[in-house]
Amino acid sequence: MKIGVIGGGQLGRMLALAGTPLGMNFAFLDPAPDACAAALGEHLRADYSDPDHLRQLADEVDLVTFEFESVPAETVAFLSQFVPVYPSAESLRIARDRWFEKSLFKDLGIPTPAFANVLDQADLDHAVIEIGLPAVLKTRTLGYDGKGQKVLRKPEDVVGAFAELGSVPCLLEGFVPFSGEVSLVAVRGRDGETRFYPLVHNTHVNGILELSVASSDHPLQALAEDYVGRVLEQLNYVGVLAFEFFEVDGGLKANEIAPRVHNSGHWTIEGAECSQFENHLRAVAGLPLGSTAKVGESAMLNFIGSVPAVDKVVAVADCHLHHYGKAFKAGRKVGHATLRSKDRATLEARIKDVEALIKG
Amino acid sequence: MKIGVIGGGQLGRMLALAGTPLGMNFAFLDPAPDACAAALGEHLRADYSDPDHLRQLADEVDLVTFEFESVPAETVAFLSQFVPVYPSAESLRIARDRWFEKSLFKDLGIPTPAFANVLDQADLDHAVIEIGLPAVLKTRTLGYDGKGQKVLRKPEDVVGAFAELGSVPCLLEGFVPFSGEVSLVAVRGRDGETRFYPLVHNTHVNGILELSVASSDHPLQALAEDYVGRVLEQLNYVGVLAFEFFEVDGGLKANEIAPRVHNSGHWTIEGAECSQFENHLRAVAGLPLGSTAKVGESAMLNFIGSVPAVDKVVAVADCHLHHYGKAFKAGRKVGHATLRSKDRATLEARIKDVEALIKG
Repeated sequence: MKIGVIGGGQLGRMLALAGTPLGMNFAFLDPAPDACAAALGEHLRADYSDPDHLRQLADEVDLVTFEFESVPAETVAFLSQFVPVYPSAESLRIARDRWFEKSLFKDLGIPTPAFANVLDQADLDHAVIEIGLPAVLKTRTLGYDGKGQKVLRKPEDVVGAFAELGSVPCLLEGFVPFSGEVSLVAVRGRDGETRFYPLVHNTHVNGILELSVASSDHPLQALAEDYVGRVLEQLNYVGVLAFEFFEVDGGLKANEIAPRVHNSGHWTIEGAECSQFENHLRAVAGLPLGSTAKVGESAMLNFIGSVPAVDKVVAVADCHLHHYGKAFKAGRKVGHATLRSKDRATLEARIKDVEALIKG
Repeated sequence: MKIGVIGGGQLGRMLALAGTPLGMNFAFLDPAPDACAAALGEHLRADYSDPDHLRQLADEVDLVTFEFESVPAETVAFLSQFVPVYPSAESLRIARDRWFEKSLFKDLGIPTPAFANVLDQADLDHAVIEIGLPAVLKTRTLGYDGKGQKVLRKPEDVVGAFAELGSVPCLLEGFVPFSGEVSLVAVRGRDGETRFYPLVHNTHVNGILELSVASSDHPLQALAEDYVGRVLEQLNYVGVLAFEFFEVDGGLKANEIAPRVHNSGHWTIEGAECSQFENHLRAVAGLPLGSTAKVGESAMLNFIGSVPAVDKVVAVADCHLHHYGKAFKAGRKVGHATLRSKDRATLEARIKDVEALIKG
């Protein structure tokens, strides 16, 4: 089976590493000459809206999937004429737009921070009165790793904020006094079978994920599964979906979903029976899903900007390096380490070991 | 770091799957147009003794390693002029010739079946008198998966046997009434650090490995490590080496070594903290070695001739499919499954599940 992937970054790379042992081949559509997934499959180097290359991709592969959600809607629509596309165009349409996304959560009874659609500065001024400050103004689409966001703390911050974010459709979200950020990675097969990984506790720094720790018997696991299950069913979703929540007052408020394999699920490569990458491929290929059970106690640390010396990283006990083969650049995710330890105390010590390497 | 691999079959493929997350790139020299490792790296499609392509390989990579031991000695010598080659030419010279290999074992005090060098029919006749029947006549080089062997049971079998195996240098080995076949996979770094995986119990059918089961606290582990350690040190070996033994009367008799990653170590991908493939790459690259400790209870079943339906294989609990992407052909290793279970009883049940699929 040949899988077409829109995007050829590290998520595509890890999909190929998981799918090759299943007998799958890969083609990546990515305009970047140095797309790091290209080492593991065919590289169609073209723009995401180039009809000739999209047609070529559709002709070559058995199905198409994505490694990022901001694929143009027209791309998905075009491909869908010729080849199955998972997750569906509708799932992508919702997930890539914060307004559609939050509105879906609301419709499904999933608690969210207060939010309002902001199409101009007047909308923003009105929304601030309604929601109050502090609040966060976010572009509805194309935001990632904290980009496309502005925190509004004082009335002066509101002035001109809409223009500052590019005068594009935005969402204003009320500030949530959260005690933690957690994500649930789920997978749903073509037949509707659904499985959930354990809740992961995430630490972000400057909007970029730094550390994910997989939980054991998290008291909010069942509630999170309930919320995520509602979304999966409503979208008739196929593939892996990650759902980020704020922990607030012992409950959960929905932040956002990613309709793809997700950074907070990278620990599953070593830390779960079947990784998010293999389970995504199993789901889109119509294969039975794999076990989402944990193996040991796991955490993931991102390498941002650069990967510490490889000999130092692999010398850390319980440590598994994932180097993305990308050029180092400040703020760029260029690798990660998974730690899989026999108990929580050992895991905590190992996290400190890797953190020390990152700090240099 | 770019690694050159002589051979582009499934061992090369699994080396690349293990090395890519370490940030390594791969080039495979293999004359076969459909070399299955080619999906994961550059494919230099040329004969193993083609000097232009060997030179190109040497120029492109940081070091060269092998996925099979019958590489021509001249190839290794040629490459060694330009680029580090691990394991060394001397290790390959010994390991690929049964006479050199058995003589080394004898020199190091490692018990072996009775053996004699056979360079013509007269040698054979003489050796049969000395060793007795039954015995096995094996070509000194190029044998694998039971090929290049003839069992001699009766005096009539001896007549013309040397010519039957092609009138090439052979070894006669006394038949050993073994109770089991075990292998020890070991890894030795450039700095001499050595680690051993748990002993594996192997079941062969018609000379082809069918099932490997990793042991726990095997009573012969320490003895096997002693024997293998002697060979590693004597050869100043770098990389993974597999050592096959017969279990005889509660002790071990040396059968053969393979100077490479080995089929009986495939279970380590899921069943050990660091796989034989990653550890081989760490060793040849001069990186610290990874843990050889087990994760759960593991076994490996080869798929010979064909891979059962993928949906059926991945539906088996605890099962991890490794499809080599090779054309199906009788007697050919085209994939394997690793089972990693929480206890031995579960593992035994899962082995039966996969065996049922293989039998169709």
